[in-house]
Amino acid sequence: MSATASIAAPLASSETPEAMIARLGRAGRLAQRTLAGLDAPAKAAALHAAAAALRRAEPEILAANARDVAAGQANGLTAALLDRLRLDAGRLAGIAAAVDQVADLPDPVGAVIDANALPSGLAVSRVRVPIGLIGIVYESRPNVTADAAALCLRSGNAVLLRGGSEAVHSNRAIHAALVEGIVAAGVPAEAVQLLPTQDRAAVGAMLTAAGLIDMIVPRGGKSLVARVQADARVPVLAHLDGINHTYIHAAADPEMAVAIAHNAKLRRTGICGSMETLLLDAAFPGSLSVVARLLDDGCELRGDARAQALDPRIRPATAEDWDTEYLDAILSVAVVDGLDAALAHIAAHSSAHTDAIVTADPAVAERFLDEVDSAIVMVNASTQFADGGEFGLGAEIGIATGRLHARGPVALEGLTTYKWLVRGTGQVRS
Amino acid sequence: MSATASIAAPLASSETPEAMIARLGRAGRLAQRTLAGLDAPAKAAALHAAAAALRRAEPEILAANARDVAAGQANGLTAALLDRLRLDAGRLAGIAAAVDQVADLPDPVGAVIDANALPSGLAVSRVRVPIGLIGIVYESRPNVTADAAALCLRSGNAVLLRGGSEAVHSNRAIHAALVEGIVAAGVPAEAVQLLPTQDRAAVGAMLTAAGLIDMIVPRGGKSLVARVQADARVPVLAHLDGINHTYIHAAADPEMAVAIAHNAKLRRTGICGSMETLLLDAAFPGSLSVVARLLDDGCELRGDARAQALDPRIRPATAEDWDTEYLDAILSVAVVDGLDAALAHIAAHSSAHTDAIVTADPAVAERFLDEVDSAIVMVNASTQFADGGEFGLGAEIGIATGRLHARGPVALEGLTTYKWLVRGTGQVRS
Repeated sequence: MSATASIAAPLASSETPEAMIARLGRAGRLAQRTLAGLDAPAKAAALHAAAAALRRAEPEILAANARDVAAGQANGLTAALLDRLRLDAGRLAGIAAAVDQVADLPDPVGAVIDANALPSGLAVSRVRVPIGLIGIVYESRPNVTADAAALCLRSGNAVLLRGGSEAVHSNRAIHAALVEGIVAAGVPAEAVQLLPTQDRAAVGAMLTAAGLIDMIVPRGGKSLVARVQADARVPVLAHLDGINHTYIHAAADPEMAVAIAHNAKLRRTGICGSMETLLLDAAFPGSLSVVARLLDDGCELRGDARAQALDPRIRPATAEDWDTEYLDAILSVAVVDGLDAALAHIAAHSSAHTDAIVTADPAVAERFLDEVDSAIVMVNASTQFADGGEFGLGAEIGIATGRLHARGPVALEGLTTYKWLVRGTGQVRS
Repeated sequence: MSATASIAAPLASSETPEAMIARLGRAGRLAQRTLAGLDAPAKAAALHAAAAALRRAEPEILAANARDVAAGQANGLTAALLDRLRLDAGRLAGIAAAVDQVADLPDPVGAVIDANALPSGLAVSRVRVPIGLIGIVYESRPNVTADAAALCLRSGNAVLLRGGSEAVHSNRAIHAALVEGIVAAGVPAEAVQLLPTQDRAAVGAMLTAAGLIDMIVPRGGKSLVARVQADARVPVLAHLDGINHTYIHAAADPEMAVAIAHNAKLRRTGICGSMETLLLDAAFPGSLSVVARLLDDGCELRGDARAQALDPRIRPATAEDWDTEYLDAILSVAVVDGLDAALAHIAAHSSAHTDAIVTADPAVAERFLDEVDSAIVMVNASTQFADGGEFGLGAEIGIATGRLHARGPVALEGLTTYKWLVRGTGQVRS
């Protein structure tokens, strides 16, 4: 099997990017209608077949990936980017296992949201349906090709994938295997399409293909997401990063505060759920221990004047620090006077991803939950739990920080919409 | 009370449209935070006070409306537009009563969507919260000023209103009364703001105020909605019109078919839920009566060759007719061979608003409900039931034909989003 065998039609040299997207979009929409007619076991079988095909295609996929890695080295990609790009047998097995896992998640399609019998005698209900054709624009991690395709297919959506140029051979090989698997299980190949070109104009055509593509999900760094949001006419489910706060209230358990602050910042510093700002209540007696534990483990702390007074190792924070997502072992620290001051700081600086309080006072906890207007608000837990898997969703396409359609961890339900069903017995409206 | 008294600050001549929207947007967001802290009875009291203020301001509002109507006559507005614009004591009483009615609807804010206890010991739940600041861009009907403000306020949202120039004095007078009422009940005036200018550039600035305005709802004709969709960077909840089908299946009850087709087309021809295309199954024996009843009542029918053969009064349809929303006593009629042909016609031509089947065969009905991918799918009922009030929602801000966030009739729930609440006992992530 050639790595590009599944790209149905090569890009005709005379075809404009808009014409190509229109062609792929129509093919995807047609395939989605078939997909919408499949029941949950049929879709699960297709995904299990895709996972098996990924395992069988290990030699081709790893060879394709080696080409990408070699090109990346030649082009001077950073070690971090090369690590994101690189596949080995273990990582590929993980990608296939994730596809199997998505196959076994409950199918959201057909679920009844609510139902109502009306005075007119009409029975009205809302049921979940797929969104339609979803465009995914992503960067260097080739696992997104399989993850996003699996989540879309499980929820009855067709998908149009556009990965980063650094991973082009890896993505084509993974895509070819996925298509081989789903076709063998009776799903049209066009349910999972990969753009046959890395031409940037094709991305622009995707973003403006309103009516043809129903939703765009950008997955990558801030610059990618910002570009997609600026250019898109198609609705965007945006996965931005997190400037997340943990507020240690006066009545926090000191040991819990130390453990949660340490975990929220240092468990993994590069994920969007990591804490970026620590707010210490002036009346909390354990602040010295909280900052000492972080400093002792190599975290750089940047504080306001009162925070700096806690430990000589704390450097001064600038105004920008309160609005900075470090994604590193760096943390801004402020001392605040009570809950209201903490809420005001969070309202002013949070990116509305995940904010947490540590307190033993239930009334304070409930006020924090009520008044913090972020996608995820936590009490007495590490912000690093902000994850679809940890929330029991089985998988996630990302964390949405926008306010519409879906918010916080977005999984299969977020890839559906609904329709209203009305069952009558001949009613006409007076 | 002057009709413009409530416009807090006049437009400084040196202020750019962007600066003005930023100023109003910040004020609206601040007011929304206060609004979000009010409980359901407090919001209801504010709306009842607003309704009472509308009644008290009847002389001012009707005088302002008379100015608009006179200007409209001088500017040659059509009789239909003048009728939409014109207020009298009865219509104003209806507007105030609608505000009272929205005040008494259940408050969606705070409702728990779902809750889950996880193996980590975390308790995760999703609760409804307001969206934030909503922009409404609308045309000549001044009742939208009160309706939209009431729906937004009931659901805890601040609103920024921009009405049509034809209704500028009416809108200012209605807005002034609303603000007088809510302020007396303790809600900040900036929770309901009306743009102090009709400058079109200000609309452009609203549409691009991402991060400041959370959602735009255009209410008006297709050209307004299309312009908003083309220019907006802020998410748009679009209320388009309907190319709605009624398919009369072979097993339809003939009398029911006549009654439903007649009602779906002719009860009110100008609403978005009216039928625009009638699909008659070739095997349905009652087609003659269905078309005769419509023709006898003055409806123009445009048919394909087989439909024309039913009655000499049926004119030939052109290709465009199948994609035309008449909003008039005109109907396109096609004869189709069975359910699959009807589904294919609907998939090709429906605007995904509301489509209906008339059939006595439950299996056929369920297939139609399952396979038609429109916001509202009906069995044995008139498409004119497509309405938030008829669906038991109490009121609606419109019918959404987009696929994301909210679909079909959109009422208070569609004006909310959710946040995730996580209650822990000191959990850190391993």
